Amino acid sequence: MELVNIVKILEEIAPPELADDFDEGRIGLILGLENNVERIAVALDANSYVLKKAAKMRADLLITHHTLIFHPINKISKTLAESLRIALENGISLYSMHTNYDRAEGGINDVLVARLGLRNIETAEIGRIGEIEPCSSAELAARVSECLQTPVMYAGEQEDIRRVMVIGGSGFRSEFLEIARENKIDAFVSSELKHEVLRAYGDLCLIDATHYATENPGMEALCSRLRELPGIEVEFIGQPSGLKAIDRT
Amino acid sequence: MELVNIVKILEEIAPPELADDFDEGRIGLILGLENNVERIAVALDANSYVLKKAAKMRADLLITHHTLIFHPINKISKTLAESLRIALENGISLYSMHTNYDRAEGGINDVLVARLGLRNIETAEIGRIGEIEPCSSAELAARVSECLQTPVMYAGEQEDIRRVMVIGGSGFRSEFLEIARENKIDAFVSSELKHEVLRAYGDLCLIDATHYATENPGMEALCSRLRELPGIEVEFIGQPSGLKAIDRT
Amino acid sequence: MELVNIVKILEEIAPPELADDFDEGRIGLILGLENNVERIAVALDANSYVLKKAAKMRADLLITHHTLIFHPINKISKTLAESLRIALENGISLYSMHTNYDRAEGGINDVLVARLGLRNIETAEIGRIGEIEPCSSAELAARVSECLQTPVMYAGEQEDIRRVMVIGGSGFRSEFLEIARENKIDAFVSSELKHEVLRAYGDLCLIDATHYATENPGMEALCSRLRELPGIEVEFIGQPSGLKAIDRT
Amino acid sequence: MELVNIVKILEEIAPPELADDFDEGRIGLILGLENNVERIAVALDANSYVLKKAAKMRADLLITHHTLIFHPINKISKTLAESLRIALENGISLYSMHTNYDRAEGGINDVLVARLGLRNIETAEIGRIGEIEPCSSAELAARVSECLQTPVMYAGEQEDIRRVMVIGGSGFRSEFLEIARENKIDAFVSSELKHEVLRAYGDLCLIDATHYATENPGMEALCSRLRELPGIEVEFIGQPSGLKAIDRT
Amino acid sequence: MELVNIVKILEEIAPPELADDFDEGRIGLILGLENNVERIAVALDANSYVLKKAAKMRADLLITHHTLIFHPINKISKTLAESLRIALENGISLYSMHTNYDRAEGGINDVLVARLGLRNIETAEIGRIGEIEPCSSAELAARVSECLQTPVMYAGEQEDIRRVMVIGGSGFRSEFLEIARENKIDAFVSSELKHEVLRAYGDLCLIDATHYATENPGMEALCSRLRELPGIEVEFIGQPSGLKAIDRT
Amino acid sequence: MELVNIVKILEEIAPPELADDFDEGRIGLILGLENNVERIAVALDANSYVLKKAAKMRADLLITHHTLIFHPINKISKTLAESLRIALENGISLYSMHTNYDRAEGGINDVLVARLGLRNIETAEIGRIGEIEPCSSAELAARVSECLQTPVMYAGEQEDIRRVMVIGGSGFRSEFLEIARENKIDAFVSSELKHEVLRAYGDLCLIDATHYATENPGMEALCSRLRELPGIEVEFIGQPSGLKAIDRT
Repeated sequence: MELVNIVKILEEIAPPELADDFDEGRIGLILGLENNVERIAVALDANSYVLKKAAKMRADLLITHHTLIFHPINKISKTLAESLRIALENGISLYSMHTNYDRAEGGINDVLVARLGLRNIETAEIGRIGEIEPCSSAELAARVSECLQTPVMYAGEQEDIRRVMVIGGSGFRSEFLEIARENKIDAFVSSELKHEVLRAYGDLCLIDATHYATENPGMEALCSRLRELPGIEVEFIGQPSGLKAIDRT
Repeated sequence: MELVNIVKILEEIAPPELADDFDEGRIGLILGLENNVERIAVALDANSYVLKKAAKMRADLLITHHTLIFHPINKISKTLAESLRIALENGISLYSMHTNYDRAEGGINDVLVARLGLRNIETAEIGRIGEIEPCSSAELAARVSECLQTPVMYAGEQEDIRRVMVIGGSGFRSEFLEIARENKIDAFVSSELKHEVLRAYGDLCLIDATHYATENPGMEALCSRLRELPGIEVEFIGQPSGLKAIDRT
Repeated sequence: MELVNIVKILEEIAPPELADDFDEGRIGLILGLENNVERIAVALDANSYVLKKAAKMRADLLITHHTLIFHPINKISKTLAESLRIALENGISLYSMHTNYDRAEGGINDVLVARLGLRNIETAEIGRIGEIEPCSSAELAARVSECLQTPVMYAGEQEDIRRVMVIGGSGFRSEFLEIARENKIDAFVSSELKHEVLRAYGDLCLIDATHYATENPGMEALCSRLRELPGIEVEFIGQPSGLKAIDRT
Repeated sequence: MELVNIVKILEEIAPPELADDFDEGRIGLILGLENNVERIAVALDANSYVLKKAAKMRADLLITHHTLIFHPINKISKTLAESLRIALENGISLYSMHTNYDRAEGGINDVLVARLGLRNIETAEIGRIGEIEPCSSAELAARVSECLQTPVMYAGEQEDIRRVMVIGGSGFRSEFLEIARENKIDAFVSSELKHEVLRAYGDLCLIDATHYATENPGMEALCSRLRELPGIEVEFIGQPSGLKAIDRT
Repeated sequence: MELVNIVKILEEIAPPELADDFDEGRIGLILGLENNVERIAVALDANSYVLKKAAKMRADLLITHHTLIFHPINKISKTLAESLRIALENGISLYSMHTNYDRAEGGINDVLVARLGLRNIETAEIGRIGEIEPCSSAELAARVSECLQTPVMYAGEQEDIRRVMVIGGSGFRSEFLEIARENKIDAFVSSELKHEVLRAYGDLCLIDATHYATENPGMEALCSRLRELPGIEVEFIGQPSGLKAIDRT
Repeated sequence: MELVNIVKILEEIAPPELADDFDEGRIGLILGLENNVERIAVALDANSYVLKKAAKMRADLLITHHTLIFHPINKISKTLAESLRIALENGISLYSMHTNYDRAEGGINDVLVARLGLRNIETAEIGRIGEIEPCSSAELAARVSECLQTPVMYAGEQEDIRRVMVIGGSGFRSEFLEIARENKIDAFVSSELKHEVLRAYGDLCLIDATHYATENPGMEALCSRLRELPGIEVEFIGQPSGLKAIDRT
């Protein structure tokens, strides 16, 4: 299948116009090598670990959530050179879908909310809101940890959580938490919880389930959708964060 | 003791010129009420919880690490109004020392490094570097958890950690991690670890010990120093983050 | 009456979308305290003099033309602290209507033009244009002084003034004077006349009737409109500029 | 005398490095025509009225306080075209000295303070501070009106004024009024007093003596200094503001 | 004919809204002197050479492609003073039409494409695309040199050129060359070819026919159109670039 | 020889601090691959043509005047991908010296001035000034064409040229031409002459000798200097511009 046609399909899955403004230049075809695409690799990040695996499976295209070059560059660092070398030597094109795939139907956040088993899902800006059987903060945190197979950190003791908002990645931002409040949310699941947010929204149960564990399911799910394409092999490349929790208090 | 004289002493403890540029307008006397100061409260944050406690102890001055108004404002939110009301009604002046106190001798990072029991301390930009008896990542994480009385998250398995860099607050920034690498550090203790940093510096043991637990000791230690002032009562107001770790993987 | 409903009515009187861009953040509810509103104070400025009067009359809301915090702040000056203390201790919410009320029907400039007794009124950008019986510059200046009860300064000797443009506040700006010229105006009444404007538009009779005297009537007039609200007491708080003219040439 | 040598002398009188940053491009030789200079005209403003007078006296150079082109231009308005035509047809070069001459020794503010008969003069930023026999606001205002031959507006009733700060032109700016307060000033003489300044510094006697009347003496005084140059005729071109005060309250 | 009516006609010929954004302030009536227009001069540039010729022919209006003041100014250089003096003394208004006339129907590029004898003309952004009898780069370069009566420099050897894109003035910009590629152009005629463009688009035949020679025909052609106005004399003022080619390789 | 040591030598030849501000991020080690350097290629540009030649000669390092990535990027175009692929597959590091090498002793402009046979050389900002036997514009243009083996375009007929200023690359900028005038230059040799410069400096003989021909000699000369390094092979990769002149006027 031609790369240009794959791109069209990817743009249907995650329409570029759904992306945040700051993602300009960071989504879409980051590196387009004129090959015919037979094998697609999917992963969360574009780095040398992932690219080596992609090369091993003889992928023609790597689709990631995070782009290869975040801040525009004039010089090529050793880390970037290593990734680029693998991509260029092995003819692996790079495609990135970020906040457009977060918002998209069936994207990062739809997959996340399903994985957590929430019901009566609504869309709230980039995130999703759903309902659960009433439970406490500790119970919800345990459930998240199990469902996403990750250690979690949480704060905000609540006894009767019914409505939960989720955003994969670093979603603990004021604008989203204000939306949570307006929507009478009891708990908020995302990652990279900062001190100032914890202080300002301490009335909610806040569960930090790590960036990787909240976004990775969405990328994994992308594979199944792409496998429906005729004559295309698709493989997911996992790269766990390795984060562990310890508590000796 | 006059407020103006307290300010002079605070500027010796945490010289304003040590602050980062972005702290302009965010350190020093944030609200100066013309009272004589007899009672000083110290805390990490300036919010209504802390101010109520400060009012109860009849403090004339509250010293915090984080300022009251981070982004400049034209309007006064309800949250801010509540804090201001308590401060103004009770005549509590506000003083903030942030990155200047992070860098200062005997400040946030010096206290943190001492609390962790590191030896042969050197200063490395805003942070500190010290040595420990050789240990593994899991062992160091456990030690940090115990010393700071906080759950921690960590990544990067290492078996022979000897040199550790620490920065209180959100110190997992590229510029500081580059310094860590140049200094042949094995482990880095700070907070608010982001996914992109974890990926880029996965060769180090990275321990996220929470913003509160890494900075609060430095503010507590400030109390003892201020208690030496004649005729001044000083009290520390703790406000734990409430963060807990759960792991059901 | 609930504050939120008062705000709706105020937004009908002075629709926010009529405001100049630079008024962003400077109009609307500047400080909202969750009280029920029974007594409203109205004044030109939000300062401690006015707030003390508002507190004495037990106002729940103070409506002013000029906002409390013009340039965004991180720190709270003593002057601001004093105003805030009175507002917060006495539960006085603050609402500001500025260039939106200048432009609004029945607002600052409509009241001003009526007070001066002009006829056949037209709207010209933020200002108003009207007609008078033919008179000289000195006669018009005397009339303005009498009608607005203020000393005035004027320049540009004219013998046959028929058409007059008025703008309350500091309206002697090139863009408005160009509109005056295009509209064949003979005289322009506003305040804060600068040297460069005087030089550039010396062909017109320019009457500086002070900022206070040209805007205050509009705020006073607002009171009568608000008194129609059921169960609401309204009081105007005057605070004359104290300006006097002396001429010993 | 060659223009280049006149310029050197003018730069000694008003060193360019004393100017405010915003005066960049607005001071010095604005239009240099390669003539030998025999006759110099001096005035406050560079406009067609002044240039016509300068042409009549056959001036080779016009020195003004305010420059010809304030905001940079791509197009030439009719007003500017008229001024330029006179200058170019009559070979009149233009030179401007603004805030550099305000600050300079013997410049605008030194002349103003002398004209008002103040004693024990000190320099305070761009302005000057001096002492007078104790008097009231009304008495000082009357004295200023007489000395500068201008109507004045004033506010802030004081009975015992002893220390006065003066700044020619529009000097009622917060930064200067703060300096006044720090210097325990009782009265401040300048021009273009705005409402917000009047409100914020109502504890001082503020006398608005018009832009023209406070700056013109400094330009007139420049003439006497230039008349000492050998073989140079110098003439001052006055252009009164025409401002009059009327009070019918 | 009144200047204001001439301007209307010029705005029909080269509608201002067709201009590039960077031309703001650089097109239209640059200097408007209130004369009745009887004689119009047309030229490529507005400089003292052209203005002297315009004065000699007693022109009331000079229309040029390049404006008099490119970068906004506060000061008047000697070169500009000389041009202005001639314009003002002789009552010559100035009007400029730049990228709006490049794009306009019958403007710079339409005239250029006709002069080169291209066929089946299409518009491509600011430029034009046309067809020729198949020829080599050397043959096309020779033809351009003859048609425009100018030495040319060219690069990119092609044997079968059929489609040519032309842009008068400095049109060798990436955005236009990308359009050329998308349109399957063989050769591109414009001026001020830079090294980096030559390297990036070496697959095309690039012919640099000088700025003057590619734009001047369009201005000359404007004359014939203006001569149709009743009672108006029109004269073109040529000012050849004087560029010559030498090759001793 | 280690790359890091080569870099030190290159920084002695062209000290980075001599570069223009706009060259930030565009000079120095653009791509550093950790190899030992045995073979160095030198060229004017870093593109796929040059890199292929460099790969063929098994170069470990390519030194160019123009950098690989001019404007910072987030995405990798096909053109860039091709260059990068060759560099990365063949382990060719990239180093760029631009305006620092223009200014450096023995750099671009020193080599150019020597190639043209000028005498009594002085440095004038980035350029050089030298003397020749008196000649006409046509004679000088012919000499430049011969010495640099390039067609040239020139303008400005002069009969008695004695002093010449030269700048390799696009040096026809106002700031440099003003320096030329102050230094009483008769002719100026550089490249990429624009219409506006030609008009403004028509009193000088201006010779456009192409970007390539004026800069390439300086890069060639660098080779001889590098050949002195022990155990290093150095090769120059020429890539002529292909520009030809035709004149059918």
